[in-house]
Amino acid sequence: MQTPLPDYLSEVLTACSPDQEGELPDDIPELASADPGRLALALATIDGEVYSVGDDEVPFTIQSIAKPFVYALAIQDSGLDTVLQHISVEPSGDAFNELSLEASTGRPFNPMINAGAIAAHSLVIGPGADEGARTERIIDAFSALAGRQLSIDESVLESELENNHRNLGIAHMLRASGLLPDDPAEVVRGYAKQSSIAVTVRDLAVMSAALANGGRLVHSGERVMHSHVARQVLSVMMSCGMYDATGDWVTQVGIPAKSGVAGGIVGALPGQLGIAAFSPPLDPQGNSVRGVDLFQRLSRDMGLHLMDAEQPSHSVIRVIDEVADDAGEAWLVAEVFGAVRFSGGERVARRISGVPGIDEGGPTRVLLDLTAVHSLSEVARRMFVETARRLAHEGHRVLVLDPQGFTADADEPTIGDARVVGSLPWRRDAGA
Amino acid sequence: MQTPLPDYLSEVLTACSPDQEGELPDDIPELASADPGRLALALATIDGEVYSVGDDEVPFTIQSIAKPFVYALAIQDSGLDTVLQHISVEPSGDAFNELSLEASTGRPFNPMINAGAIAAHSLVIGPGADEGARTERIIDAFSALAGRQLSIDESVLESELENNHRNLGIAHMLRASGLLPDDPAEVVRGYAKQSSIAVTVRDLAVMSAALANGGRLVHSGERVMHSHVARQVLSVMMSCGMYDATGDWVTQVGIPAKSGVAGGIVGALPGQLGIAAFSPPLDPQGNSVRGVDLFQRLSRDMGLHLMDAEQPSHSVIRVIDEVADDAGEAWLVAEVFGAVRFSGGERVARRISGVPGIDEGGPTRVLLDLTAVHSLSEVARRMFVETARRLAHEGHRVLVLDPQGFTADADEPTIGDARVVGSLPWRRDAGA
Amino acid sequence: MQTPLPDYLSEVLTACSPDQEGELPDDIPELASADPGRLALALATIDGEVYSVGDDEVPFTIQSIAKPFVYALAIQDSGLDTVLQHISVEPSGDAFNELSLEASTGRPFNPMINAGAIAAHSLVIGPGADEGARTERIIDAFSALAGRQLSIDESVLESELENNHRNLGIAHMLRASGLLPDDPAEVVRGYAKQSSIAVTVRDLAVMSAALANGGRLVHSGERVMHSHVARQVLSVMMSCGMYDATGDWVTQVGIPAKSGVAGGIVGALPGQLGIAAFSPPLDPQGNSVRGVDLFQRLSRDMGLHLMDAEQPSHSVIRVIDEVADDAGEAWLVAEVFGAVRFSGGERVARRISGVPGIDEGGPTRVLLDLTAVHSLSEVARRMFVETARRLAHEGHRVLVLDPQGFTADADEPTIGDARVVGSLPWRRDAGA
Amino acid sequence: MQTPLPDYLSEVLTACSPDQEGELPDDIPELASADPGRLALALATIDGEVYSVGDDEVPFTIQSIAKPFVYALAIQDSGLDTVLQHISVEPSGDAFNELSLEASTGRPFNPMINAGAIAAHSLVIGPGADEGARTERIIDAFSALAGRQLSIDESVLESELENNHRNLGIAHMLRASGLLPDDPAEVVRGYAKQSSIAVTVRDLAVMSAALANGGRLVHSGERVMHSHVARQVLSVMMSCGMYDATGDWVTQVGIPAKSGVAGGIVGALPGQLGIAAFSPPLDPQGNSVRGVDLFQRLSRDMGLHLMDAEQPSHSVIRVIDEVADDAGEAWLVAEVFGAVRFSGGERVARRISGVPGIDEGGPTRVLLDLTAVHSLSEVARRMFVETARRLAHEGHRVLVLDPQGFTADADEPTIGDARVVGSLPWRRDAGA
Repeated sequence: MQTPLPDYLSEVLTACSPDQEGELPDDIPELASADPGRLALALATIDGEVYSVGDDEVPFTIQSIAKPFVYALAIQDSGLDTVLQHISVEPSGDAFNELSLEASTGRPFNPMINAGAIAAHSLVIGPGADEGARTERIIDAFSALAGRQLSIDESVLESELENNHRNLGIAHMLRASGLLPDDPAEVVRGYAKQSSIAVTVRDLAVMSAALANGGRLVHSGERVMHSHVARQVLSVMMSCGMYDATGDWVTQVGIPAKSGVAGGIVGALPGQLGIAAFSPPLDPQGNSVRGVDLFQRLSRDMGLHLMDAEQPSHSVIRVIDEVADDAGEAWLVAEVFGAVRFSGGERVARRISGVPGIDEGGPTRVLLDLTAVHSLSEVARRMFVETARRLAHEGHRVLVLDPQGFTADADEPTIGDARVVGSLPWRRDAGA
Repeated sequence: MQTPLPDYLSEVLTACSPDQEGELPDDIPELASADPGRLALALATIDGEVYSVGDDEVPFTIQSIAKPFVYALAIQDSGLDTVLQHISVEPSGDAFNELSLEASTGRPFNPMINAGAIAAHSLVIGPGADEGARTERIIDAFSALAGRQLSIDESVLESELENNHRNLGIAHMLRASGLLPDDPAEVVRGYAKQSSIAVTVRDLAVMSAALANGGRLVHSGERVMHSHVARQVLSVMMSCGMYDATGDWVTQVGIPAKSGVAGGIVGALPGQLGIAAFSPPLDPQGNSVRGVDLFQRLSRDMGLHLMDAEQPSHSVIRVIDEVADDAGEAWLVAEVFGAVRFSGGERVARRISGVPGIDEGGPTRVLLDLTAVHSLSEVARRMFVETARRLAHEGHRVLVLDPQGFTADADEPTIGDARVVGSLPWRRDAGA
Repeated sequence: MQTPLPDYLSEVLTACSPDQEGELPDDIPELASADPGRLALALATIDGEVYSVGDDEVPFTIQSIAKPFVYALAIQDSGLDTVLQHISVEPSGDAFNELSLEASTGRPFNPMINAGAIAAHSLVIGPGADEGARTERIIDAFSALAGRQLSIDESVLESELENNHRNLGIAHMLRASGLLPDDPAEVVRGYAKQSSIAVTVRDLAVMSAALANGGRLVHSGERVMHSHVARQVLSVMMSCGMYDATGDWVTQVGIPAKSGVAGGIVGALPGQLGIAAFSPPLDPQGNSVRGVDLFQRLSRDMGLHLMDAEQPSHSVIRVIDEVADDAGEAWLVAEVFGAVRFSGGERVARRISGVPGIDEGGPTRVLLDLTAVHSLSEVARRMFVETARRLAHEGHRVLVLDPQGFTADADEPTIGDARVVGSLPWRRDAGA
Repeated sequence: MQTPLPDYLSEVLTACSPDQEGELPDDIPELASADPGRLALALATIDGEVYSVGDDEVPFTIQSIAKPFVYALAIQDSGLDTVLQHISVEPSGDAFNELSLEASTGRPFNPMINAGAIAAHSLVIGPGADEGARTERIIDAFSALAGRQLSIDESVLESELENNHRNLGIAHMLRASGLLPDDPAEVVRGYAKQSSIAVTVRDLAVMSAALANGGRLVHSGERVMHSHVARQVLSVMMSCGMYDATGDWVTQVGIPAKSGVAGGIVGALPGQLGIAAFSPPLDPQGNSVRGVDLFQRLSRDMGLHLMDAEQPSHSVIRVIDEVADDAGEAWLVAEVFGAVRFSGGERVARRISGVPGIDEGGPTRVLLDLTAVHSLSEVARRMFVETARRLAHEGHRVLVLDPQGFTADADEPTIGDARVVGSLPWRRDAGA
């Protein structure tokens, strides 16, 4: 059996009208000659599944979509504090190629506009790094994220280098403000190279899925950036990713995103998905017309809007109060599933404390089964531990079934008076 | 047993240093004389549980925190299109009391600044409504959200009315631009009243939990606004809620929020929680100093940042391939739990299609158990239905256990060749 | 014989094409119904001669042209320091109805935009004055300047009062910033009245000629404002008078000016002329289309551009070295004419010091004849006195013929050793 | 006898307190090491007299004071229309080193800020000119204006070239906007050279006196730029010359001016004077603290404010009604002196038409004596001619004594019936 998703994506692509308006960018000749009919869409789950339709093997240059990933590298290499000293995180309300420096500090408003992105580029490896080393670092990192070796489109690069006066202007301005210690011309050359890396929508979906996955590669689970870095990048994409159309995008699409002048758009839904669309003609804000349309359809049809209350939310707890063990003793069983964070932990503690008889009927046998939990946040862990401790303290007999060792420190198989066990012979095996 | 959450909240409150700086607002005498030592914190879950600590019974005026809720009323009463014609949704980067009108359209930048909030107030009920009716509508709606009768703090109101020249200025400007059909003085009086409604942190947490709950009251589940309205409001809180500190807030706290000049801050985490903090001294941006601190601690400790990949995410699927029915026949059982949206549906379809033997070993008995699902998005429903249909079409024997009727239209008990049943005698009863 | 000027003005009026574009203002109904074909032009010299052509008897409302004159009253009544604390003098580059407050001080940018003009209105008489008294003061002052009793056009006033939300907005904003101590509604009502005073181009030309005349009425020579006040007003007209078209106006016309939305424009050329034009249709900047055209023609044809080097400049000195007195003695006579300021004084001193024989040929008789001087600046006076003193000190016989008493303090008929006389019997009478 | 002016200037210099605050610019090392105690002042009249005091022989770099002169060259070489297409003339209200491009057109706001000045530099000779040729053209032109060979201060130039990132940023931005066809680095190098030309206050006073003189060298009278160019430059100096302190400068000093970061300030009073001051310490706006003080004193003491009504204004007319010619016939004599423009012409026509007896007493002999006129504007010429024509037509006997030929075309010795003569034997010779 094939999953129905590819068919669904094909429907979306077909529904996205081909006769929409939009213009190819006229400032970079190589982009101006792109085929306006290209159209592609890709999704990548955080566990590595990739779906794509349309011109999904057609390469195009990454352009501004490189910005969030290079911002991530800058934070990893130079540290968040240093990066924040050079680049703010406020939406500017300006167009992408505005200078947009904060009046008070001279910092670029955010790393999603050119000024901030050029500053971010210069913080990869760190001040003084040479251009070749930076470019190599960026191509290597992008290749790792995409899961295949990427390379520069030399003809687009050449075209960019002939038309980079605005970026040179910005870089010299940053240098004048003390925000760019390196040679402006060299930094802008490196910046042009990062923008000219050729990718497909599949590459972009996989790359952004790594952001959605908290900085771990989706195909291997390997961590390539700290989860705080991924979070910082997604936050900035959310508030500043779509230039002066950010407010419309946040209300209508609700997915952290970034677009590029070659027609690509990526989105990343934390904990869920990476998405990428490709269609060259642009709207006046510089975003792909059909790319925006595709994202709007996906968000609406697939319920991806981050502000939807019907989030793929609750970890699940199933409380069963009559399960007999091998000895015929009845246990109150609380099974917990999924990724458990604060609200899950709160619900577990509340449900157990609310079970009839827990507080009245004398000592009870309680089994807290964490077998199907696949992640547990610190606050949830503390709440589980404290719940088990209190139950045991009140005289109940408590077992915590925790084969993955979320709750117990090292070899300490107790939480207060509760016993922590890795397996339970009399329970049927559960596959999460 | 008591749940450990209250103790945890007390710890957070204690950790929030009392000697932080901050100033009482000096433009409204009644607020300037507030007790700067007040401190309170409340959480409300979307299923109606409320936890609170500190001065949680001390009333204070809601001030700008009324803005998102009145914006919701405006959309309900006048329609989103009309509201968008009067008020944009873009972050302005300006301070809260700036005029901040868009150059091209004259519209206020967003409904979280005064200009936009005054316009939103005038769209409650609709143009031409009298001030008394609007005030009554707002108090009634806020009371319903809070779950208790709220009222205006008359002494603060009086103080506001004596110091409302800036708002009168804004209202006359809006009137001059044709964005305010009603009498500016009357609208500003009504606006002062909405700002002077007295609330506690418990009220605010419960009110914002209704936004987090997609527009349903948390104590009764009653729907008081369309889920699209709640989504629009949360989106605007996310991108514009904290004035010119929005970028810092989004990166550091990551929760849609709104602050008020009386020292309140509310946050709403879609699908999870409402949060409210209260402490009168303000920072230069007009946000409660200790309120911001509390939110930063909660976000960090409790893992509430919306851009965290470790979201309380995945609905859970448990696939068990050897369950015998009463007749001793083995079934492949796929149990699905929780709120299922796109990524959950995708996972279910993929897991089933990937079970060893499904495609090779000849016809199989498959049971798709949706008993524990509590919501199912349209795209996920389509994927379930299509998965069942394809399996049946390929010759498998398929049962969809769907006692809540998510999948089947009306009385049609089949999906393709799959049979949809409401209960399964040989399955033990599961409490979700 | 008639002077040829009226014919010349008629030519200019005829040359100003009637089919130029332009729109009547649509925000005040009474102005929107004006006759777009009206056209008038008037010049008034600083000695009281008035020339006018076209619809020179047709009254129209003064509108923003009241601003410079009310600014003058504000300075006279409240003092320049107080006025500068409330209103800056910088060009704003904004349109006339923008709020345009300085970020740092909250002051309106200048008194030629509405915000500054409303603040200026409130400084007439001073804070706390009632609206009636201010209106009376303004009408009286304008009537004195125009040389006839002016009055308010009640139907335009009524129309203004129904459409003054923007000004009310501005006034409340100023009040909120502490820049307007009085009731905003009352101040805006008074402001509407000042704008509704009916005038003709003859009135306006005479009024602005008083500014050109250093604050003295042109028909009577009566001083109605200090010369520093007139200078301040003209300076602000020069740099801020034509809104966002100021740069074009300064380069192309070069005359301090102010326009009104009813189609009037006034200009004032210091020491020379007042000019007024009238034609209702406006350009997008809110300036009369044909009024601007008339001023461009006048400036070009009549050489009125203030930055023209060929200024009606030099006072004249005529040095004649062979004039015999009654006794037959030869005198070196230096006659000085006109308004003498620094450059005139410099020239006199230089010319006398450069006369052949002054330094070589032994004592000489020198007559410094100031009979035809009609004004003498302080620095020029000092130079004359010092020149006479030095000549006498070097042994020359020096007479200063100064029947108007420019040089001598009271009864002291000497300057050093030079003798100051009021008349000279052996000189023929000269009519200046 | 010495003229008292040098003593006066010395007094002004002494009065200018040496202990005023101000900082040396810290971005160019060579300027940061200037002697803060240097102080100099110079005046140059438009007929070539130069007065100077203090450190009047100390050279310093011209810096931004080059801007108005290079703007003049750009207009001469590329034409005003082309220059206006590249550079606007509106005050920007920004600091000198802001980018300050107009939103609508991308043009720099005016040629007095760096962006506009860099664009102006590139229009010297014209697009495509090489840097050496431009530099030579500029040095030659400045040398001609100053009346001596000027040269570049190589050590300041070197320091500038090491710190020109802001200007490089601006130039690349202009290139990106299509406003700078040449290589940005080359243009900025040339711009640095123009800024590094070494001058004294005497040089600057003489150079600006040429602007005041309508584009003619003051020592030779040679025309080096069209009078319209000088007028355009002075207009822009008036409205934009002192950056964001322009409004204060226009009201308080009232002289078109330009300052440089090395401590120089020049002013030019049309038809009168060039002024230059020098003192290195700068105020926060980048203007020389003591230089501003000197200009304020000069303007106040010497009555130089352009908006003063007591302008060195009126040409003078002396009407004498009883002068006998050799034949004993009585003539009505009207002598006109000085530079005559519109208001002078108007006065002559009016005075003659108002002489008792002209219209009543039958034919009269009228002598219009223009011997002492030194310039006559077109409108004044037309008024004289028309006045003479009308008088003759009415039967009077009219002679126009016009030895300089202002009124008569070529060989035509009549105006209507009036006779134009070049000399009058029976009149004594008058030295103007």
